[in-house]
Amino acid sequence: MDRTKRKAYLKITSEALRFCTGYFHENGFTQLMPVVLSPITDPLGPDPGSSVIKTGEIEYLGQRLCLTQSMILHKQIAVKEGVEKLFILSPNVRLEHPRRAESGKHLFEFTQLDFEIAHARMADVFSLMEGLMCGVARHVSRECAGELALLGRRLLEFSAPFRRYTTTELAAQFGEDWELPASLAHASPFWAISHKREFYDKDDPEQPGMFLNYDMVYPEGFGEALSGAEREWEYEKIARKIDAHGLDRGRYAAYLAHAREGLVPSAGGGFGIERLSRFLSGAPHVGDVQLFRRVPGEEVVA
Amino acid sequence: MDRTKRKAYLKITSEALRFCTGYFHENGFTQLMPVVLSPITDPLGPDPGSSVIKTGEIEYLGQRLCLTQSMILHKQIAVKEGVEKLFILSPNVRLEHPRRAESGKHLFEFTQLDFEIAHARMADVFSLMEGLMCGVARHVSRECAGELALLGRRLLEFSAPFRRYTTTELAAQFGEDWELPASLAHASPFWAISHKREFYDKDDPEQPGMFLNYDMVYPEGFGEALSGAEREWEYEKIARKIDAHGLDRGRYAAYLAHAREGLVPSAGGGFGIERLSRFLSGAPHVGDVQLFRRVPGEEVVA
Repeated sequence: MDRTKRKAYLKITSEALRFCTGYFHENGFTQLMPVVLSPITDPLGPDPGSSVIKTGEIEYLGQRLCLTQSMILHKQIAVKEGVEKLFILSPNVRLEHPRRAESGKHLFEFTQLDFEIAHARMADVFSLMEGLMCGVARHVSRECAGELALLGRRLLEFSAPFRRYTTTELAAQFGEDWELPASLAHASPFWAISHKREFYDKDDPEQPGMFLNYDMVYPEGFGEALSGAEREWEYEKIARKIDAHGLDRGRYAAYLAHAREGLVPSAGGGFGIERLSRFLSGAPHVGDVQLFRRVPGEEVVA
Repeated sequence: MDRTKRKAYLKITSEALRFCTGYFHENGFTQLMPVVLSPITDPLGPDPGSSVIKTGEIEYLGQRLCLTQSMILHKQIAVKEGVEKLFILSPNVRLEHPRRAESGKHLFEFTQLDFEIAHARMADVFSLMEGLMCGVARHVSRECAGELALLGRRLLEFSAPFRRYTTTELAAQFGEDWELPASLAHASPFWAISHKREFYDKDDPEQPGMFLNYDMVYPEGFGEALSGAEREWEYEKIARKIDAHGLDRGRYAAYLAHAREGLVPSAGGGFGIERLSRFLSGAPHVGDVQLFRRVPGEEVVA
C-alpha cells in the first residue's frame, strides 16, 4: 500500500481510539486490563454457520488456556465483583475460515472496545453509543481533515437517535441476509434488535422468542459496528441455556461458579476498533487499516 | 481480596492508563493496535538465566504463530514504514517459570505501554519518561486520593531529572543482583544504563562493551519500571548479533527482510501498566492489581 495512505489510516485509527477511550473515561467508566489467555472464553455460538474453525489454545504449567474470543464472561464477573461501569481495549483472536476474507469486515485478530454497565437496559446503551458515534465522527472529521481528503472520504453527517428495527422487520424488507443490503440502504448508523444467538444474551421475558440484544450497523455497506445485549444473570437460566446450546458446562466452570454466587443484571456491548476506523476512513477492506494485516487466509507476514 | 481494596487498585490502574495514553497523544504519538499472534516476536534473550520456559504458539491455516512477548520488532518495522512516533497498549505473554512468583513483580500476562521514536537518542527518552512519571504520580495523587488513603499508600514526591547510573556502578555498590537493594535505597525513580542483553539494543560505538540501553527503576523496592534502548538498525550488525546470540535467523526472516531494506535509527522503551499501578498503589504483589490474576505457578481461575 501507498505509504501516505497507510499513514492516513493509522492516524484516523489513533484519533478514533483517543476519542473513544476519553469518552468512556469522561462518562465514569473504569478501564480494565485485557485478558489474552484464560480457561474460559466466549463460545461465539450457537450459530451452526459460525465460521470460527477452532479456538486458539496453549498449555502452561498443566493448564489448558484459550485465547480470548471476547471478554463477555469476564465482563459479567467484573460487574459482579463491584465494577459498575467498565471498558476494556480487548484484543480478540477468532480463527476464522478463509472464506471470511471476502466479507471485507472479518479479521482473525482485532481489538474490541468492550464495555458493560451494571443494572443498565438496552435504551441506556443506545444513547451512550449514539453519543459516542456522533462524537467520534465529529472528532475525526475535525482532527483528520487532511487524511480524509487524501483518502477521498466524505463522512456523511448523522445525528441521534438512530433508527431501530427488529431483525424480523429487516429480514422482511431485505431478506434473510439483510445486513449488507440494509447497510447499503442507509446513510446513518441504525440498530437491529433481537438476534437468536449466544446463551448469555437475555431472552425477552415479555415476548417469547424475542431477545434483548442488538447490533449497531454502519451505513453505506460497512455492515455490523457493534454487538451487545442485556445479559442473562440467573444461574438456573444460564445453565439451562448452556445445555440447550449443546455446550459443555465443564468448559464454563469458573463462570458458572460466579453465576451460582449471583451475577448482577447488566447490559453492554463491544465494537471493533478496526471496523470503526474502516467506516470513518472509507477503507475497502478492514485489513487495510491494520499496519500488520490479519485477514483470514492471507499469509501472516509480520 | 477485600472488595473495596480491589476496586481501589482498579481505579488507580484506570487513572494511570488515562493519564499515560493522554500524555502520548498530547505529545504527538500515533497509537497503534497491538499484535497478539505473529511469526516473529521478541526472543527475550540472550540471558542464560532467562526464566521464560517457552514461547506460546498456535497453528492457524498451516502457519506457526507466536504469542507476542513484546512488540519490539514490530515497533522497528512501524518506524521504518513511516510512523515516526508511536505507542501501543500491548498485551505481552511471557510463560515464566513458577519461581518468578516470588519476585513480586512477574506475571505471565501483562500489558506493556510500548513506544518508539524515530531518530531519538537516550536523552530524549529520559526526559519524555521523567515527564510521564512525575505527571502520572501527580494525576493519581489528585484523582485517587481516597483510594490511596484506603490502601495506606503515601506516594513520595519526586521530580526530574532522575539520577543516572551505569550498571557497573550499581553492581559495585549493591552487588551483581543490584536491582532490589538499589531500589530499596532510593526514594525517587532512577536510571540504570548499559545492560548486556537483546540483539536489537545498540552497542555503544564509542565505548566497546557498553550498550546504549537503559532501565528505569522504581524506588522503595518496587524494582524495574521500564526497559528501553537505542536500537541497532544496520542489517549486517543485526544479522551478526542474531548469530552471536545463538538465535536462528530463519525465525526472524520477516524482520531481517525489513532490515535489509533499511531500518531507521530509533529509541524507545516499554513499561508494564501493572507494575506502574503496583508502584502507585503500593500493592504487595503485582498480581494484586489484576482483577484476573496471572501470577506464574498459580492456578488460573478465570
